Amino acid sequence: MLKMNPRNPLLKTDRLEMFTDGVFAIAITLLILEVKIPKHAELEAYGGLAGYLLKIWPAYLSYVVSFIVIGIYWSNLHWLFSFVIIRTNHVFNLLCLLFLMTIAFIPFTTAILGDYVLDPHYRNAAVTAYCIGFILPILTSYLGALYAFHQYRLVDPRISKNFLKKLLMQFFVSLIMPLIAIGLSFRYPWVSLGIVLVNVLLFLIPPEKPVYTETATASVTA
Amino acid sequence: MLKMNPRNPLLKTDRLEMFTDGVFAIAITLLILEVKIPKHAELEAYGGLAGYLLKIWPAYLSYVVSFIVIGIYWSNLHWLFSFVIIRTNHVFNLLCLLFLMTIAFIPFTTAILGDYVLDPHYRNAAVTAYCIGFILPILTSYLGALYAFHQYRLVDPRISKNFLKKLLMQFFVSLIMPLIAIGLSFRYPWVSLGIVLVNVLLFLIPPEKPVYTETATASVTA
Amino acid sequence: MLKMNPRNPLLKTDRLEMFTDGVFAIAITLLILEVKIPKHAELEAYGGLAGYLLKIWPAYLSYVVSFIVIGIYWSNLHWLFSFVIIRTNHVFNLLCLLFLMTIAFIPFTTAILGDYVLDPHYRNAAVTAYCIGFILPILTSYLGALYAFHQYRLVDPRISKNFLKKLLMQFFVSLIMPLIAIGLSFRYPWVSLGIVLVNVLLFLIPPEKPVYTETATASVTA
Amino acid sequence: MLKMNPRNPLLKTDRLEMFTDGVFAIAITLLILEVKIPKHAELEAYGGLAGYLLKIWPAYLSYVVSFIVIGIYWSNLHWLFSFVIIRTNHVFNLLCLLFLMTIAFIPFTTAILGDYVLDPHYRNAAVTAYCIGFILPILTSYLGALYAFHQYRLVDPRISKNFLKKLLMQFFVSLIMPLIAIGLSFRYPWVSLGIVLVNVLLFLIPPEKPVYTETATASVTA
Repeated sequence: MLKMNPRNPLLKTDRLEMFTDGVFAIAITLLILEVKIPKHAELEAYGGLAGYLLKIWPAYLSYVVSFIVIGIYWSNLHWLFSFVIIRTNHVFNLLCLLFLMTIAFIPFTTAILGDYVLDPHYRNAAVTAYCIGFILPILTSYLGALYAFHQYRLVDPRISKNFLKKLLMQFFVSLIMPLIAIGLSFRYPWVSLGIVLVNVLLFLIPPEKPVYTETATASVTA
Repeated sequence: MLKMNPRNPLLKTDRLEMFTDGVFAIAITLLILEVKIPKHAELEAYGGLAGYLLKIWPAYLSYVVSFIVIGIYWSNLHWLFSFVIIRTNHVFNLLCLLFLMTIAFIPFTTAILGDYVLDPHYRNAAVTAYCIGFILPILTSYLGALYAFHQYRLVDPRISKNFLKKLLMQFFVSLIMPLIAIGLSFRYPWVSLGIVLVNVLLFLIPPEKPVYTETATASVTA
Repeated sequence: MLKMNPRNPLLKTDRLEMFTDGVFAIAITLLILEVKIPKHAELEAYGGLAGYLLKIWPAYLSYVVSFIVIGIYWSNLHWLFSFVIIRTNHVFNLLCLLFLMTIAFIPFTTAILGDYVLDPHYRNAAVTAYCIGFILPILTSYLGALYAFHQYRLVDPRISKNFLKKLLMQFFVSLIMPLIAIGLSFRYPWVSLGIVLVNVLLFLIPPEKPVYTETATASVTA
Repeated sequence: MLKMNPRNPLLKTDRLEMFTDGVFAIAITLLILEVKIPKHAELEAYGGLAGYLLKIWPAYLSYVVSFIVIGIYWSNLHWLFSFVIIRTNHVFNLLCLLFLMTIAFIPFTTAILGDYVLDPHYRNAAVTAYCIGFILPILTSYLGALYAFHQYRLVDPRISKNFLKKLLMQFFVSLIMPLIAIGLSFRYPWVSLGIVLVNVLLFLIPPEKPVYTETATASVTA
């Protein structure tokens, strides 16, 4: 099932996973750099340091939400590499790179949201930007899954075809809510943020155990 | 003892440990970014570069204390994953994520403390912020331990029940000093910082060797 | 074939690979820090937040291109350490360090390009800087390959001599296009950028499978 | 020889090495953040972007020197953990933490040097700061070696006593040149920088192969 191509040989996933873990760990930790330390001169306008630290609550909330978002992507990827995807190749490395590019972009849209969500003039644009930053990793991971699952290209051959189909369907469905959020953000930014929050909460549900083909189950049970 | 749940299967801890190590390594190294490089125009006010470098000693001290704080958390986690917690699952991954969120927050409160501890107007708020940043990882790691230790969910089954109870008690007790420090920070910020410092020194004491059940000890000795 | 030198003993490549992966993961994630979050006061000049986010498209493009550039270098290095280079020594560690120094430099030239490519006064200098930042890792990796391949110093002894020669030739040839880009950047910066883009696209072609000596092939097939 | 202490049990070095590698990789990559991207308004004073990029050569030089300094420390540590130190414990973890604290400090003194070495008013202070940042990791690694080598506490027991003594002597001697550099920096900053540069070049010499005790050599040869 695992086809060989002389210019695109199959590789173990260990180094790809390490590199991915590195990028995730850095992107998630960089989020704190966007919670700004106040300059002395700014504090008067905020009514002192305590006032400043209380009034920047949207920055804390953006931090928490984006930390969970990146963390969930990491956890799901971890699961995918533990149970489903067992090999990689040059093309899949590139698709993972594309995915990581969208993960490392999240600190930027997070900072935009934290800085401007309370400003009525710029709220809509800030929320649109955040929702776009939110959907990009779903889109790129969907592309990666389409490539990896195609004819069991990089997948554990014991996993049942229906389970792979179901996973792809879940990827596809998970694009719908953020798409609606983007559409609504131009007029109802708070509704968009609510949708994103619900989406994040749905992500917290652990992924299902993979279903194996009958023969594979037999060999595992035996 | 290690119960299986089809939606929450047990996983090896290696990738969780790697990800955790990554976040710790980055958070601890980001601390230096909060020791600010002076702009040319600022130097006159400080009496030159030498004057600047001497007068920002609170920034160095915050750097050193927070480096030790994050380092000790890392070291203790290292110990926990070496001797006590031997498996993970989706929920524990999320609890670890929550813990890492509070670790990655420390550079922020460290910068606040370094910038404002010498300013009498803002000292109290700066110390309160630092103490809150200090207690959060203790709180979230306590939650994680409660979950992992419950009915030996993710724990080495050979470890004695009393030892686990003692560990949880230590977690709980370690919340008391920082709570007092937060309370006092509104009026006696220097006392609060003293308590935090003593707390950090107590953390330096190495953790105890785990105690095994009698049968396990027998099997180890045999 | 793998010669021993008492002051330069051969080592396994695993820790060098981990360190390299770490630097790559950080350099690639730091790129996002160069996409600047707008200050409130600046937004008027851009026609609001939406205007700002649209007008900084060169920063996004620089981000994407440099992400791919660093990612491809990582992918190619991954391939080199999987199939060709199987040992390291003190001198090669230093050469890898030199290479990493040029990788970690890319976020700087990327930021220069993103900030000034649309400004006719500074475009030429920005593109020259970017092209120099682009050629440096090719140059230093060529040096590393020359050292590692010399008399099979750190190379899998089963690989055919012709394949190593061909690889070195490819390294050498890949210097030509960026050199032309640097030369043209002083007068035709857009042409230079076009050349760099084509070069990046050529990098996307997966590396060839290594060719083994006849005896090695026999032993592998047997 | 490897003595056990119930509160300070011996551990494998693998996770300590990974954490150390992480901090090194981040500290070395953060150096580039100190090479500042020019603001549009500043460029006039420098005669344009090309002028700016040429005139900040001290920032490039600081980047290169500090990259090599951190890289060499990493390479030497790598060597120490490959051949000499084979176990760790709680105390040694803390000493490594102290060492990493001084490594992560180097980006700060590097930025100071790059920004102020060309300014005659602040050159002396900048060079003193850099030299202090340079000696701190030597000092803390010396402390770590003293602890680890004491009565073969964490050391490969086959290594000869004389070799360990020689290593400690080399650590001690390597403190002398930077101490002289610090002393001279108050009056002759360029001489100090010259001494540091020579010191860095001396670091490039690969470490010697460890010498084993006669019985160990016999067992290895047999």
